[in-house]
Amino acid sequence: MFRKLLIANRGEIAVRIGRACAEMGIRSVAVYTEPDRFGLHVKRADEAYYVGDDPLAGYLDVRRLVDLARETGCDAIHPGYGLLAENAELARVCTETGIVFIGPNADVMARMSDKTSARQAMRQAGVPVTPGSDGKVPDLDEARRLAGKIGYPVMFKATSGGGGLGIRRCNDPEQLEQAWHRVLSEASKAFGSAEVFLEKCIDDSHHIEVQVMADRHGGVIHLFERDCSIQRRNQKLMEVAPSPHLTPEQRAYVGELAVRAAKTVGYENAGTVEFLVKGNEIYFMEMNTRIQVEHTITEAITGMDIVREQIRIAAGLKLSFRQEDVRHHGHAIQFRINAEDPRNDFLPSFGRVTRYYAPGGPGVRTDTAIYTGYQIPPYFDALCLKLIVWGMSWEETLDRGIRALNDMRLQGIKTTAPFYEEILRHPQFRRGSFDTGFVAAHPELLNYSVKRNPEEAALAIAAAIAAHAGL
Amino acid sequence: MFRKLLIANRGEIAVRIGRACAEMGIRSVAVYTEPDRFGLHVKRADEAYYVGDDPLAGYLDVRRLVDLARETGCDAIHPGYGLLAENAELARVCTETGIVFIGPNADVMARMSDKTSARQAMRQAGVPVTPGSDGKVPDLDEARRLAGKIGYPVMFKATSGGGGLGIRRCNDPEQLEQAWHRVLSEASKAFGSAEVFLEKCIDDSHHIEVQVMADRHGGVIHLFERDCSIQRRNQKLMEVAPSPHLTPEQRAYVGELAVRAAKTVGYENAGTVEFLVKGNEIYFMEMNTRIQVEHTITEAITGMDIVREQIRIAAGLKLSFRQEDVRHHGHAIQFRINAEDPRNDFLPSFGRVTRYYAPGGPGVRTDTAIYTGYQIPPYFDALCLKLIVWGMSWEETLDRGIRALNDMRLQGIKTTAPFYEEILRHPQFRRGSFDTGFVAAHPELLNYSVKRNPEEAALAIAAAIAAHAGL
Repeated sequence: MFRKLLIANRGEIAVRIGRACAEMGIRSVAVYTEPDRFGLHVKRADEAYYVGDDPLAGYLDVRRLVDLARETGCDAIHPGYGLLAENAELARVCTETGIVFIGPNADVMARMSDKTSARQAMRQAGVPVTPGSDGKVPDLDEARRLAGKIGYPVMFKATSGGGGLGIRRCNDPEQLEQAWHRVLSEASKAFGSAEVFLEKCIDDSHHIEVQVMADRHGGVIHLFERDCSIQRRNQKLMEVAPSPHLTPEQRAYVGELAVRAAKTVGYENAGTVEFLVKGNEIYFMEMNTRIQVEHTITEAITGMDIVREQIRIAAGLKLSFRQEDVRHHGHAIQFRINAEDPRNDFLPSFGRVTRYYAPGGPGVRTDTAIYTGYQIPPYFDALCLKLIVWGMSWEETLDRGIRALNDMRLQGIKTTAPFYEEILRHPQFRRGSFDTGFVAAHPELLNYSVKRNPEEAALAIAAAIAAHAGL
Repeated sequence: MFRKLLIANRGEIAVRIGRACAEMGIRSVAVYTEPDRFGLHVKRADEAYYVGDDPLAGYLDVRRLVDLARETGCDAIHPGYGLLAENAELARVCTETGIVFIGPNADVMARMSDKTSARQAMRQAGVPVTPGSDGKVPDLDEARRLAGKIGYPVMFKATSGGGGLGIRRCNDPEQLEQAWHRVLSEASKAFGSAEVFLEKCIDDSHHIEVQVMADRHGGVIHLFERDCSIQRRNQKLMEVAPSPHLTPEQRAYVGELAVRAAKTVGYENAGTVEFLVKGNEIYFMEMNTRIQVEHTITEAITGMDIVREQIRIAAGLKLSFRQEDVRHHGHAIQFRINAEDPRNDFLPSFGRVTRYYAPGGPGVRTDTAIYTGYQIPPYFDALCLKLIVWGMSWEETLDRGIRALNDMRLQGIKTTAPFYEEILRHPQFRRGSFDTGFVAAHPELLNYSVKRNPEEAALAIAAAIAAHAGL
């Protein structure tokens, strides 16, 4: 097993990885840039090193991170999600330097991060993919011809895109030209590549993703699916496991497809195979070659510690479980508590956390890097806390979710928490009937009033009096 | 279902019950005495009422609480554990007033709280009891005769005792007289009854207790056992589920015994049947007619919400589960984080919590009523936080326990947390081999050094400088 591990990330996922290290007796090394000098991931690591003034550059500097890992005597690097997690270069440099990269090898990663080559690999493996272009679309004329053939609406997607970025929708031929130019420009800016492909838009479908784990001894298993249909502008907000939309047969089928996909590309470590499901149609969307934000709900229903398993696999061990040992129990929901104001078009609400008190009791888990007094830096994503609830039944899970959201105290910033409470109270959601169009179709979810905590109100009044008095 | 419920308790269990109410859509009513005016159970309830200046009297005033319940429109009262939880009078007055008492009926409660009548009931039901007196011991001569017959060591126990109080041990005939007088005096003072019985001392055994649940429709199930062998002076410190000491056959057997015991006495609601296990010998010890501090670990391994189930049963509903639906998964440990200094003979360490930050991540649950700035009142028990960890394997659970204990920040008071870390690191405990003599047999568990948090150290230095400078 590794002796020491460098966590090439920040925020809650860096804390999460540090916890796995602590449980495994592995010394953890954190890195941080200037705005993160008071970060919880820094406080909780065994060692922490400064990697620069620029908020992001140090977290993205492959050479610097690998050198640091070597100089501090680390055996391995865990990239978390985001930042360098799907950067094949990091995986490659690690291998060259004799440091274990916790994830798949660089070739598989590169192949899957190119969405067109991923689609080709899946087609060859007999995994159904959404109707669309075979590879990249060379020009506007070809785009027009293909879209006509597939049928509108269609989407342009950047082949190197991810995280819901680099996507443009066209409802009819008139929108095609503008969308084409926009996606090209966005793709080159965001991903450094102007390659795009075309896919049929499957509206109001279910975003279903299957967690897979593969070791280097030929063991490949799946840990069932997550339903990530609650989205806003292609950004996941709340995730559910298992999906209330799959029949047991469909569950078994997507599990098999995901394992077949992982085997086909010679996958190793944890990965996610994403599908679009609409009625009986099931299509491969993409494969994510990293731990995901929402891995927590799979842990809740299966009991498995996915980060621990990632580290074990990377150290060359066999999977701890055979497929037949993996069972799912109950229901889990993850709420991404973002520092955003839903009633103000989800505008970021960075600032100081004047009070944070974690919810507790049965079936509640939190993963966060915030604390009372923490200043949320404006340079990173808006996710400030993951709240995960588990219950024996769907209804118990919903009620526990409402309770836990109310149980939590998070003051000083606006968050998506009250918006999630509305979703949990919505009759359609409670029936387990929601798809990727749910949030957009229910603007009434924004009509909530925030109950102000008496203490917070008193502080606000005191501040107003002080300001008025010129104190 | 009830509309409104009065929680006749304080601290973490009152918060716990309030959470169950919130999840079930039941309005919660808290009560508090003067030292608890800033209690979390007060802040989190839907309504809260003051019941007097005296720290304890208001929590023990049956008439006042029942009147308050009636006046505030409550349908039911939940007594939690401790305080009035095993007070048959409360159950009786509730029934007379038309308010539902969440627990067994007054007669069953009275019968089980008298340890000699409980032993008689169990003998009749064919449940083996520890060798001892048939009923109360009338005088010292009879005590001497019985002890000689049973064989030393023996224990005197108050028939109305509980919570590890009202117990005196005699290793040989010389100690008998003194122990007799002491236990009589203690029993009359603590429980208002000088009745005692005699039991054989079964040293270095395992304290195994089975959680049972019974509805009023004849449904009686067990939720497997908890191992509470980690004790100090008959006080439970850490509990484990399932017990590493039982074979599957023994597990099934104690489960059956517990269900038989509950059926025999016509039990209703949640209860616990305690056994002493040594090798192949299994003896009934006592039955607790209430929710227990350590119910959390049973929830962790079975997924069942025991408080929710208590409320459902009291409302006349059937059990949510049949015996064959109840499964146990993985391993759970509860740490009773007490405001005590283990290295100073577990002296209470009440005071202000200068910082509390909950541990998080996978497999971690907290139940507490403390928060940063909370002043722990010296009038109640020393339990300030329950930390519960769950893992797939015994080893994972131990490692997660160490991690979570370190993850938590609880400053300003001394606690039992570092002592528990020593237990988790002890090779004998890790092998799953411990009995009720474990803590006493390992004084080296107290040889830990508390890692001081840098922030706390800085504050201490600043305070010392300030004091020196006469500031």
